[in-house]
Amino acid sequence: MNRGYFISVEGIEGAGKSTQLKFIQQLLESTGKVVTVTREPGGTELGEQIRTLLLTPRPGGMSADAELLLIFAARVEHVRQVISPALAGGKWVLCDRFTGASYAYQGGGRGLPLSRIAALENWALGHLRPDLTLLLDVPVKVGLQRAANRHQQPDRFEQEQVEFFEHVRETYLSLAKKRVDEYRLINASLPLAEVQETIQQVIMAFVEANQSV
Amino acid sequence: MNRGYFISVEGIEGAGKSTQLKFIQQLLESTGKVVTVTREPGGTELGEQIRTLLLTPRPGGMSADAELLLIFAARVEHVRQVISPALAGGKWVLCDRFTGASYAYQGGGRGLPLSRIAALENWALGHLRPDLTLLLDVPVKVGLQRAANRHQQPDRFEQEQVEFFEHVRETYLSLAKKRVDEYRLINASLPLAEVQETIQQVIMAFVEANQSV
Repeated sequence: MNRGYFISVEGIEGAGKSTQLKFIQQLLESTGKVVTVTREPGGTELGEQIRTLLLTPRPGGMSADAELLLIFAARVEHVRQVISPALAGGKWVLCDRFTGASYAYQGGGRGLPLSRIAALENWALGHLRPDLTLLLDVPVKVGLQRAANRHQQPDRFEQEQVEFFEHVRETYLSLAKKRVDEYRLINASLPLAEVQETIQQVIMAFVEANQSV
Repeated sequence: MNRGYFISVEGIEGAGKSTQLKFIQQLLESTGKVVTVTREPGGTELGEQIRTLLLTPRPGGMSADAELLLIFAARVEHVRQVISPALAGGKWVLCDRFTGASYAYQGGGRGLPLSRIAALENWALGHLRPDLTLLLDVPVKVGLQRAANRHQQPDRFEQEQVEFFEHVRETYLSLAKKRVDEYRLINASLPLAEVQETIQQVIMAFVEANQSV
């Protein structure tokens, strides 16, 4: 059996990830792929417990190092229990955020050196990277407005200031520029129909390029 | 103000760490030191929450990598919030387990390569190491028997088999051989009075060698 492919979807709060994940899932399934949809941080029982530790507002704060180590603890468990078995079984994995978010949030947002994140990524994941990452890009104010309409209680990340998210967005954009083989930049502030037309082109081109012989 | 010193106490379950930690604290205080006593995993609010994740029996298991990342997440927070500020304030820190336990349990017990643990130690802690580590050594059967008398519900580590703890003990002993500057090996299966006489000699010699001028 051929190994499946691993697609991650990245973007700041309010970029439309949930909507587009469902859309991408339907696209892939329409081509006959079996799709595992999952999310980070989380994706396993332990991962969801770690997610709670990460998202709960915390008066004493949490160092960026501790935050990153917790995220990678959840991630290695997610890879071991969910992602690797699915890929090995020929399924396509569609993941709401992956290591790109660590560069953007803990690197861009919290100010950890990207080289330090890369070192931990290599330690934890070896060579595992998404085969394709869609970066849904919206201006920070648009994203935060959408996210604010959705939640009553902001989580520990949503409590951050606009400047934090500007750094997150910039880091995402610079990743997309640097890793052109993996990243596709999607302008997610366009009307939904146009965004989805672009996503459809990207996904179908990727499926076509990776047809099993 | 002079920086304080960092002493860790290591050993398998039932080696007598709790009793000897109190004894060492009294010794240090009798020489006029101000002592901060703390423990791993734990030592902070986040650390205690991570401790719960680590110790709760878990049907699906947890990878050794995830376990180690969680332990280091708790550890960096512990260093940032408790250990480094205490040392900087001239206090002596007395810690129930530190990185030695990661080598022994995740390395010896779970089989992670020690070089992999060393890489994460360097990533997370830079150059921070205990100035002195007392290894309380007892045969595994003695330790487990003592621990069994103490608990009704064994935690996730205490549920391990004798062979696991034999590997933990061996790794502790090999660390003590390799790191002679940091480690002092204490035969903790002798009668209490003899064990404490040895500990007293070790601690007083260390205090003497590190007198502020």
